[in-house]
Amino acid sequence: MQVDNKNFKTIWLEENYVKIIDQRFLPHEFVVEEIKTSVEMADAIKEMHLRGAGLIGAAAGYGVYLSAEKNYKENINIFEYRELIKNDIEILRKTRPTAVNLEYALNRQLELVEKQDDPKNLLENLKNEALNIAKEDEESCKRIGENGVSIIRKISESKKGKTVNILTHCNAGWLAFVDYGTATSPIYKAQKEGIDVHVWVDETRPRNQGARLTAWELGQQGIKHTVVADNVGGHLMQKKLVDLVIVGSDRTTYTGDVANKIGTYLKALAAFDNNIPFYVALPSSTFDWNISDGVRDIPIEERGGEEVKYIQGLVDGEIKKVLLTPETSMAKNFGFDVTPGKYITGLITEKGICRANKDSIKELFADKK
Amino acid sequence: MQVDNKNFKTIWLEENYVKIIDQRFLPHEFVVEEIKTSVEMADAIKEMHLRGAGLIGAAAGYGVYLSAEKNYKENINIFEYRELIKNDIEILRKTRPTAVNLEYALNRQLELVEKQDDPKNLLENLKNEALNIAKEDEESCKRIGENGVSIIRKISESKKGKTVNILTHCNAGWLAFVDYGTATSPIYKAQKEGIDVHVWVDETRPRNQGARLTAWELGQQGIKHTVVADNVGGHLMQKKLVDLVIVGSDRTTYTGDVANKIGTYLKALAAFDNNIPFYVALPSSTFDWNISDGVRDIPIEERGGEEVKYIQGLVDGEIKKVLLTPETSMAKNFGFDVTPGKYITGLITEKGICRANKDSIKELFADKK
Repeated sequence: MQVDNKNFKTIWLEENYVKIIDQRFLPHEFVVEEIKTSVEMADAIKEMHLRGAGLIGAAAGYGVYLSAEKNYKENINIFEYRELIKNDIEILRKTRPTAVNLEYALNRQLELVEKQDDPKNLLENLKNEALNIAKEDEESCKRIGENGVSIIRKISESKKGKTVNILTHCNAGWLAFVDYGTATSPIYKAQKEGIDVHVWVDETRPRNQGARLTAWELGQQGIKHTVVADNVGGHLMQKKLVDLVIVGSDRTTYTGDVANKIGTYLKALAAFDNNIPFYVALPSSTFDWNISDGVRDIPIEERGGEEVKYIQGLVDGEIKKVLLTPETSMAKNFGFDVTPGKYITGLITEKGICRANKDSIKELFADKK
Repeated sequence: MQVDNKNFKTIWLEENYVKIIDQRFLPHEFVVEEIKTSVEMADAIKEMHLRGAGLIGAAAGYGVYLSAEKNYKENINIFEYRELIKNDIEILRKTRPTAVNLEYALNRQLELVEKQDDPKNLLENLKNEALNIAKEDEESCKRIGENGVSIIRKISESKKGKTVNILTHCNAGWLAFVDYGTATSPIYKAQKEGIDVHVWVDETRPRNQGARLTAWELGQQGIKHTVVADNVGGHLMQKKLVDLVIVGSDRTTYTGDVANKIGTYLKALAAFDNNIPFYVALPSSTFDWNISDGVRDIPIEERGGEEVKYIQGLVDGEIKKVLLTPETSMAKNFGFDVTPGKYITGLITEKGICRANKDSIKELFADKK
């Protein structure tokens, strides 16, 4: 998508290194970071230089390639080579527990590591697979836009062309994927079709992915948007100022439960209470085909309380952290919550739209477990 | 309540002036401000040097007294004197639209202005009434604690003395009233009774009354508490980490709908979805005996978007504001939302506990309309 009118993706290969947009300084500074090793990549994932379901997957894929690249020597024994790469895969696996794309990408790479007997070919295979994972993510997001725009188009028609107001939580935009995004992809497609859209952007405390990232990317794309505190969505829905909610997913059970950024569940409840359609946009790579009860069984990442107690912003031209609470107060920081499928109107996937239940998901993904 | 182990109220009379705790700098600095005129008081209310249902009422009462004090001259004509005071009452009335206590206090003072024919007596009457309004607020809050503690005690007993986890939103603590608070009053009483309590403090964006004020006052009182982002409450409830929700009210319809800080409605929905008791603590002065449909008819204050785009905190020993969003992004800032009575387990008032519906409220307040 566009950054200062130039085309960018969030992650790409340049020579033998990986480049990423370091999202920690947005919207105040646009920084591109070079990642040279899989350990650097693990750090970038854990410390959230990059984040978002699809992008974490793509980064993990590239991370394995970087390990293969670094550890490759002529005449290296395949068993030794495998062990070195598998070690790095385990380091990458421990970075973030909730997003299933991480597992998905690492397992795809691991399969190649186990299968390929020739070190040189393995290196080539892992590079190609990393590129494939990224490409597939991009393609999936593009198709999610094509599939999801029908929902926006229908609302626009029923409103006789008046502005369609869409609420989104966190950043399931192109910054969370390789390109296009999930929740934002139908919005970008609607813009292309000339549909009048306006986005309510939840700021998404504590890390403010909405206020920092979604607002920034919508602004760069020239899409009307308004930032609101996370507390506001219920009121907007009661007052019929929201026509549609679209959010992303970090892990989706085959029964239709969705783990997404903390606070998503509250917006789903409010949408349900006010009869407002609540959609989750996701590539099928976020499906977890093993978990049936999301609230009970999806692991929820807990991060440091200092992300709640301090917040980063721009002051006197510098990016600084300020203390918000009494210094001695405790804070807890859960990264995700789970929205039960019964509160979700539908899932927008690259294969089409289905309801958030076992049968409907099974029908659309007959080839999966 | 306690500030550095000394007893304080939020507002008091000293000589002919009013002193208030200027809450804008908490928790980082404790500042006492002297208010000399009703215009200064209007400014202090509007710019939120002080805030909270009961405290706004008490401040408005004192504001009218300050007007009377300033405008009093020997031999002043009563009609002229009345006009001057009524002018200032209208300035005070325009400061905050949602809290009904403002109206309540100003109307009590206005009645005296209309009734009393002697300027000197009127000045004396308005002073006494201002003191009465403040005293009644304090007494109501104390009784709310005595009435509400039974709920906490029962939960503690059913948990065999294990910690009772209470979630609260915004600050309905003593800083929002003259003393004790509403939502916090049963908690302070529980502490006195030796019940083991822990409070989940919603940070309450955009003005962070939870992270700044509730956390500070609970800390000063030595009550265990943990600050969480507003997004977290639903997850905590799903995981049974909340036993009870208590919030305050800025306006309560006689049918049981509650206007409180923006985001309260979302927590009520989550409590309802997880069968967790959701109580609203309020002095009867917050009742609006004229409005039946709160969602439709309670006016909701809209404040400036810069309160969302910027946030204040401590950095390098100084209190500073930092920019959170892209500079060009729009932001909207609604101050309150309305929770329908059907999602509220009960109302804790100075007269006792009732259900949040017309009949139950009528029964408890038979003397009112």
